[in-house]
Amino acid sequence: MYKGLLFVVSGPSGAGKGTICKQLAKDSNIDLSVSMTTRDPRPFEKDGVSYYFVSEEEFFKVRDKGGFLEYATVYGKHYGTPKDAVMKKLEMGRDVVLEIDIQGALQIRKNYPAGIFIFILPPSMSELRKRITGRGSESEESINLRLGEALKEVSYIDKYDYCVVNGDLSEAVSRVAAIVKAEHSRVSESIYELIEQYRKEL
Amino acid sequence: MYKGLLFVVSGPSGAGKGTICKQLAKDSNIDLSVSMTTRDPRPFEKDGVSYYFVSEEEFFKVRDKGGFLEYATVYGKHYGTPKDAVMKKLEMGRDVVLEIDIQGALQIRKNYPAGIFIFILPPSMSELRKRITGRGSESEESINLRLGEALKEVSYIDKYDYCVVNGDLSEAVSRVAAIVKAEHSRVSESIYELIEQYRKEL
Repeated sequence: MYKGLLFVVSGPSGAGKGTICKQLAKDSNIDLSVSMTTRDPRPFEKDGVSYYFVSEEEFFKVRDKGGFLEYATVYGKHYGTPKDAVMKKLEMGRDVVLEIDIQGALQIRKNYPAGIFIFILPPSMSELRKRITGRGSESEESINLRLGEALKEVSYIDKYDYCVVNGDLSEAVSRVAAIVKAEHSRVSESIYELIEQYRKEL
Repeated sequence: MYKGLLFVVSGPSGAGKGTICKQLAKDSNIDLSVSMTTRDPRPFEKDGVSYYFVSEEEFFKVRDKGGFLEYATVYGKHYGTPKDAVMKKLEMGRDVVLEIDIQGALQIRKNYPAGIFIFILPPSMSELRKRITGRGSESEESINLRLGEALKEVSYIDKYDYCVVNGDLSEAVSRVAAIVKAEHSRVSESIYELIEQYRKEL
């Protein structure tokens, strides 16, 4: 039976992975995975769209029965990718894209090695600085910390299959879309069904 | 230094690999490799465009000094892919596409493992029969032989990285173009130069 493909997209904060994933889901036949979190919803965030907002108790229940493809704790709040929801879509033949940090991606490499791992890079550090600065009122010190963090994260790139430099957004989206299309042309089990058909025809 | 990529396209006769490669070379920034042969040029075939037409003596001279990426003999005529011409383009950063039979592709797998191998499939055996029949005046027996041959060739598909079903030509070309684009986004040595630049910027 034909199964969907799981694409895992990560990269340093400010590289634009979120925007790329949203655009990809909009343009093509691919579903954006929705994470579960114990943090409070921000204004305009809808349950089941931005995140599934749950209590700590619910979160730990899912975690303890191995219900996450990956999970992490950031500033005391928990975040996780619900396994069942992703698996159900893949079984139905739908592609799924996950936007996720590097630590989460490495967990998924272990739990779902068939995933396709894409790293989004900024065109330069000065451009990344500009993007982070543009977001709001962070101090010079905290911006430098984040750039140092980005450089550390980039060193994990050899754990990934693909990398896309996000200088121009539409070019970056079209590159990720090409990766999705190409991965559907991989020699895989489903091709043997076609060959079996050839055999029957002769 | 950035190097071009070598794409090797094969598939059974009638699958449409020639048309796909020509269209790809026309649409995109990729060079079609020109083979060397000892067969006579047909009318309208130009030396250096369709083939390099050479004498047996010249062919053997190239072969004996290891000058072919692959070579084969078909009906007493020799065909080979000149290594130097391909390597020079790759070194210059140009992509090269080779349209070649399965035996040749397997030789290239050994001689140039960095190549990317794409198998072109017909949508069905009845469609392949139609295409072969449409070409001219082959006997029913010879057509059946060729279909049997095609089925044997298809069993080598697991030596390939990608396969593209050529039902609709423009869809097939766009799939191969997506593979080319995706392969340029592979995590490779050239990305480490960019990361080195990041480091210098910080």
